[in-house]
Amino acid sequence: MSEVHVARRVLLRERCAASAAQDGPADAVLVTRPANIRYLTGRPPYGAALLLGPDGADTLLGPADAGPSHSGGSHPGDELRAEQLTSPEGDTAVAAAGLAATAGARSLAVEEHHLTVARHRAMASVAGGLRLTGLAFPVEQQRVIKDDEEISALRIAAEITDQALGELLESILVGRTERHLALELERRLIDHGAEGSAFPTSVATGRNSGLAQHRPTDRRVEEGDFLSVRLGAQYHGYRCQIGRTFVIGTAPEDWQVELYDLVFAAQRAGREALTPGTACSDVDRAARQVLAAAGHGGALGPATGHGVGLEIGEDPRLSPGAMGKLDACVPVTIEPGVHLPGHGGVRIDDTLVVRPTADGGPELLTITTKELLAL
Amino acid sequence: MSEVHVARRVLLRERCAASAAQDGPADAVLVTRPANIRYLTGRPPYGAALLLGPDGADTLLGPADAGPSHSGGSHPGDELRAEQLTSPEGDTAVAAAGLAATAGARSLAVEEHHLTVARHRAMASVAGGLRLTGLAFPVEQQRVIKDDEEISALRIAAEITDQALGELLESILVGRTERHLALELERRLIDHGAEGSAFPTSVATGRNSGLAQHRPTDRRVEEGDFLSVRLGAQYHGYRCQIGRTFVIGTAPEDWQVELYDLVFAAQRAGREALTPGTACSDVDRAARQVLAAAGHGGALGPATGHGVGLEIGEDPRLSPGAMGKLDACVPVTIEPGVHLPGHGGVRIDDTLVVRPTADGGPELLTITTKELLAL
Repeated sequence: MSEVHVARRVLLRERCAASAAQDGPADAVLVTRPANIRYLTGRPPYGAALLLGPDGADTLLGPADAGPSHSGGSHPGDELRAEQLTSPEGDTAVAAAGLAATAGARSLAVEEHHLTVARHRAMASVAGGLRLTGLAFPVEQQRVIKDDEEISALRIAAEITDQALGELLESILVGRTERHLALELERRLIDHGAEGSAFPTSVATGRNSGLAQHRPTDRRVEEGDFLSVRLGAQYHGYRCQIGRTFVIGTAPEDWQVELYDLVFAAQRAGREALTPGTACSDVDRAARQVLAAAGHGGALGPATGHGVGLEIGEDPRLSPGAMGKLDACVPVTIEPGVHLPGHGGVRIDDTLVVRPTADGGPELLTITTKELLAL
Repeated sequence: MSEVHVARRVLLRERCAASAAQDGPADAVLVTRPANIRYLTGRPPYGAALLLGPDGADTLLGPADAGPSHSGGSHPGDELRAEQLTSPEGDTAVAAAGLAATAGARSLAVEEHHLTVARHRAMASVAGGLRLTGLAFPVEQQRVIKDDEEISALRIAAEITDQALGELLESILVGRTERHLALELERRLIDHGAEGSAFPTSVATGRNSGLAQHRPTDRRVEEGDFLSVRLGAQYHGYRCQIGRTFVIGTAPEDWQVELYDLVFAAQRAGREALTPGTACSDVDRAARQVLAAAGHGGALGPATGHGVGLEIGEDPRLSPGAMGKLDACVPVTIEPGVHLPGHGGVRIDDTLVVRPTADGGPELLTITTKELLAL
């Protein structure tokens, strides 16, 4: 993996050097956002700061209390210096600013969307001659299109997720609480090899079903309920997402079938819109207009999907105001839903990779059936 | 609970009004750090911003996609307005700055240790006439000394934690992986009424044992291992912490007994130093010097304890460089440990509440035995 990370840092340096900053490119670049550090180094990112120095050297500064995984020295084959702060009160970004100044940098581009005002000020005061500029989002942009290894990790994450969900469907659900079902799903993710959950598992029954951000409660599953679940595995750092809605008992009621079919149609429209070159807002519109035509436009959240990768909510965002177009090899979710207050609702989420139509169209990673199962 | 939150906000306003800011106190205060918002409102804090306006009105601004828990209107008995952004791209802090300016504020004190540079700049640009000043840490300071209700929540969190750990000790451990034991502990926390884990549960066996920040691996528990676990429940938002080390098999080896006794002595010294008026650095020194005298000073992390509450790592910090003294009704951890690379080690963590000696001294919340159990 080391060569991959070196190549990513080289590309970042090239992009920064080519960027049309008003006063020319910065001499040095500081990355502090954890997912960006992981992407560029493959190392545990918490509390760390990655300096791409003016002398061509890359240094990862780790906090003093980070434990042995951050311990010093460089790894063979990876041109990355690793240094650990000695003072527990020390700040890795401030130390990096000092290091950049010592190495002769006159300007340092930083992630203003991640650094706090207080850290930024401390950096400015420790390295007086160093001008701090804004880095914008080049690392986030680099992360949008995934390479084969990243997509492989997502594919395995999705397999694990499908397995965990499939096992749950074979067990007795009536009488169990949302909270216990969520925990069982998380345990099964680990059983099948996940590093952990990609995000907190949501299980919603009855009138809670279909809520986008529902946190599991002590409500028990009852006959006749809609049951909506949303979960995902994390594998090698990569996170996927699946959402499914089931009905509990022998046969769904008419309103349940109607609502399910509607959300399914919206989700399919979103999936079918996933082709390279399509505007992100058009994907959103494809799903959204199906719900709006049935009078449920207001029930939908601000987005019908988003990119996934080292974070569960990445670029691109599939929403009415989204800019930009889809590229091939971009993994995204399609996740419309309708919640009827007092009744419940339906969510159907998939993770897919955008692929050219000539290659068979979008690659569905989360393959659990989307039939309305009665459990 | 609402009156409690109103009183906390009134106190914050008084403190801010009395603060000796260079240009006088700010007209309005903006709180964005999630734990601080929860402390001042009792509401779900994610993505929200709490404005204490110049007109005496308090407004909680929630993000557009926060779900029904953020929905608008005010709650009876709580003088807090709740507003939800309508645009998904909107930023609650930026909206709050606009609201403050509209309400006639000329200056707004913000949490510079939480706001990013980018958000801060966006706030300044949306409300041109509004001067942004630094709020410093008045809410964190208010949070240090806990009231009876907060300590009750912590006491219940500790009871739950002791129960979960106690049950694990009665089960077969040999052959099970760190990862599975950690998951089982987390499930048991929920079983006993926790909202969730206070922090990711750590289980470390054999040569991993005693590591401060160990993440559970697929290593299996073996005869003769040290097994160190660290877990905690979250209850009503309040988080506690326990750490214990056991030996697997019939009898510990001599080096294990020696190391255990040493860490136990250090931990006891720390606990016994917990009296109102004691300097935080002196508590750290009491524990640290026991280990240093035995030649293990270098094995210790940067702190031997910290405050707990709505966050697992709060003020005060018990470290060599810590400022300030302990007060009564401050819950803290005492958690020294020694890890011998290649062999393993011992950690013993407790959560206690500082109490006057006349009242019986520190109140131990985590009461699981600290004998060296052979399991």
